[in-house]
Amino acid sequence: MSGRILVIGGNAAGMTAASRAKRVDPSLEVTIVEAGPRIAYSICGLPYFLSGRVPNLSDLQLFTPESLRNERGIAARVSCRAVAISASQRRVTVVERAERAEATIPFDRLLVATGYRPVRPDIEGLEGPDVFTASRLEDGEAMGERLRDGTCRRAVVVGGGYVGLELTEALVERGLEVTLIESSSQLMSSLDPDMAAKVEQELDRRGVRVLTRRRVRRIQRTSEGLVEAVELESGGLRIGADLVFVDVGVEPSVALAEASDIALGPSGGIAVSERMETNLAGIYAAGNCAETRHLVTGAATLMPLGTVAAKQGRVAGENLAGRRSRFVGAVGTSVVKVFGVVAARTGLSEREASAAGYSTLDSTITGRFCASYFDRDAEASVKVTACRQSGRLLGAQIVGHPKAASAIDVAATAVSAGMSVEQASQLDLAYAPPVGALWHPLLVALNTLSRAF
Amino acid sequence: MSGRILVIGGNAAGMTAASRAKRVDPSLEVTIVEAGPRIAYSICGLPYFLSGRVPNLSDLQLFTPESLRNERGIAARVSCRAVAISASQRRVTVVERAERAEATIPFDRLLVATGYRPVRPDIEGLEGPDVFTASRLEDGEAMGERLRDGTCRRAVVVGGGYVGLELTEALVERGLEVTLIESSSQLMSSLDPDMAAKVEQELDRRGVRVLTRRRVRRIQRTSEGLVEAVELESGGLRIGADLVFVDVGVEPSVALAEASDIALGPSGGIAVSERMETNLAGIYAAGNCAETRHLVTGAATLMPLGTVAAKQGRVAGENLAGRRSRFVGAVGTSVVKVFGVVAARTGLSEREASAAGYSTLDSTITGRFCASYFDRDAEASVKVTACRQSGRLLGAQIVGHPKAASAIDVAATAVSAGMSVEQASQLDLAYAPPVGALWHPLLVALNTLSRAF
Repeated sequence: MSGRILVIGGNAAGMTAASRAKRVDPSLEVTIVEAGPRIAYSICGLPYFLSGRVPNLSDLQLFTPESLRNERGIAARVSCRAVAISASQRRVTVVERAERAEATIPFDRLLVATGYRPVRPDIEGLEGPDVFTASRLEDGEAMGERLRDGTCRRAVVVGGGYVGLELTEALVERGLEVTLIESSSQLMSSLDPDMAAKVEQELDRRGVRVLTRRRVRRIQRTSEGLVEAVELESGGLRIGADLVFVDVGVEPSVALAEASDIALGPSGGIAVSERMETNLAGIYAAGNCAETRHLVTGAATLMPLGTVAAKQGRVAGENLAGRRSRFVGAVGTSVVKVFGVVAARTGLSEREASAAGYSTLDSTITGRFCASYFDRDAEASVKVTACRQSGRLLGAQIVGHPKAASAIDVAATAVSAGMSVEQASQLDLAYAPPVGALWHPLLVALNTLSRAF
Repeated sequence: MSGRILVIGGNAAGMTAASRAKRVDPSLEVTIVEAGPRIAYSICGLPYFLSGRVPNLSDLQLFTPESLRNERGIAARVSCRAVAISASQRRVTVVERAERAEATIPFDRLLVATGYRPVRPDIEGLEGPDVFTASRLEDGEAMGERLRDGTCRRAVVVGGGYVGLELTEALVERGLEVTLIESSSQLMSSLDPDMAAKVEQELDRRGVRVLTRRRVRRIQRTSEGLVEAVELESGGLRIGADLVFVDVGVEPSVALAEASDIALGPSGGIAVSERMETNLAGIYAAGNCAETRHLVTGAATLMPLGTVAAKQGRVAGENLAGRRSRFVGAVGTSVVKVFGVVAARTGLSEREASAAGYSTLDSTITGRFCASYFDRDAEASVKVTACRQSGRLLGAQIVGHPKAASAIDVAATAVSAGMSVEQASQLDLAYAPPVGALWHPLLVALNTLSRAF
């Protein structure tokens, strides 16, 4: 199947799809248009550039347009914004920053992989210098420069999601005094409150001031326009700050799709078939702009995760190249490391399960992930949640030592397979004293939970 | 359900069963008889006592008969060998070392958990001082004493299975020069040759002399009977040695069962139902003396693993207490750490799958288990094997950095669930740069394999 493949968006989903399509059918002419100046970077690595662990931003880039053309035969046009899609005329209108004029690019099959954009909270004084987000590599460049001049002493992080937590760690490692402000009652809304509390304890231990149930009203600026403090609602607490980092969530970038008659789903993301095709034939969508079927609830949801975006991109790429591949869905598995602990989750939390209408049973245990004589500290809390009626394992959460992180993948696999608590409790997991436990803590949690039925 | 529960064997399966039965029904009178002088120890920890990491052998013991009685209300009689089971009279004849006379213990329900015994190879000069195995804690005591006197400089390890490898590492850590002799063409017969070769490379790097396809003919002893060398067959190579460790495999301890009309299965282990019941009503068997259903082949097999023994013991304990629990089976998941690498496997290797009649496809990749800026060395090879006809994932093997170890549990879960390569390749696994990869190496291996179909 030859033809012209156009991909809008040059990161996880778009890059993967373009590469996969070209690999499946090398005769295809594959073009990526990317609104930003760079393609194929790891935005997840940004906190580690800011902490100083990654020396150069370019270390987070897998390809430049040049290397992509040379190594994979794919054309990438950067600083090139798609502004309209014409399904009937099979072309996309773009504006290239260098040209400042519109141009059109024809396609036979199209992928929309426009990703997400950060939610902008309603805070006075948000616009201007010293306030940063982290959705593009350029954000890290600007923030890195600001940190390099050595005048930053105090930072406020607005939003206690995983990016806020990673940034908090990075800023503390850079020697800043950090206050983390979260409007809801807990950090990490993807965890249940009891598990999130363990993450908050770690931040406390590391000297981070955590304020929950507090909203930022205003960012106070000096007469030169620089940030000098953050003022909270209700009480008017004022926190001195030289820098503010904002991450209060993301939303799918769907303006272009919406304006082009591409249908959105109930979640607000682009509705796609299992083949990642939109309502318009030959036009696909993948990544954080598209919906993902949740394998537990069956619902079309938003899962703004790089892992899911890459898998969707792979399937979309195969279909762009004429194969018939399908993406089955995902279970929302994620992990974050903050200082000495990891927090991981998969499936449904107790709260999410209740919201989805399940009557749940759950159990939480603390277990060790290797023999105590190898690492006395390798402990973590494991929480498992099940459906009271069916006995099905709905989800798991883990907070503790980094050695516990990959146990979430075991739970994710069991959840994806639709295993009952009883089935999962007999999983044949590996043990040797340096790297495991005779009774894997996940099995201990499941055994405990099975007694509740 | 009240009554007298008797358990023969006081380790993984027996201890777990006794504890579980008593917990399910505290009115039960539960007694363990154990032929050796100790109960409830971690034989897997023995290499780490010998290396010096575990200071005292008692650190590997979870319970003494006293603490077991006080904490769990279970009686344990040690140095007490069961010599006959009378199913019709519901009693077991025992010989207590202290008494040197037979006694009988009545039971209402019985568990045979006699474990395994090491295979004794046919080697001249094997009997006598300075030759050790590691099947009981007492073996470690004797070997520890021999090492403590400081006169051991050279050791020969006979058998390249996982215990032989762990012992090799321990002896090297104690400063000994070690030669490892394996009669077959590769170490670790549970791995395919290509994967086992990576373990052999690690031993080479650490200065261990590995001789494969060589058999020991004779252990040469001084006039005082001490070991001075090991002589090989074919060629007559002579290797100077002060100590010999032998681990050439294990077999189920079934002499008592056989003599008592308890039926064995085709594998040579005790045949059991899903409830862990033998052919004799009310008489159960669990652990390394019993068969285990392989969840891939469906065959009754021997899986001499502590993890499987503990799970069987748990199920047997519930049934001893009157519940109706069942053990579904296992997939032979195991892991061993040798110096800087782990070697893990689950399901069927390519060779095992071929032997079981499958036509297989497989793929091997090398991947990194966290971002390179967190640990450049966190690499491992992952091999996945599938059924060519059905597409079902049959097994996986991993050799490399210890961070890769728990990925085998993900594969074990997918294999247990009967997933196809395609299903498993889309598993939603966690990623954050410090603890994972955007494309988990297991998924990379599965994606590569899926292209072979």
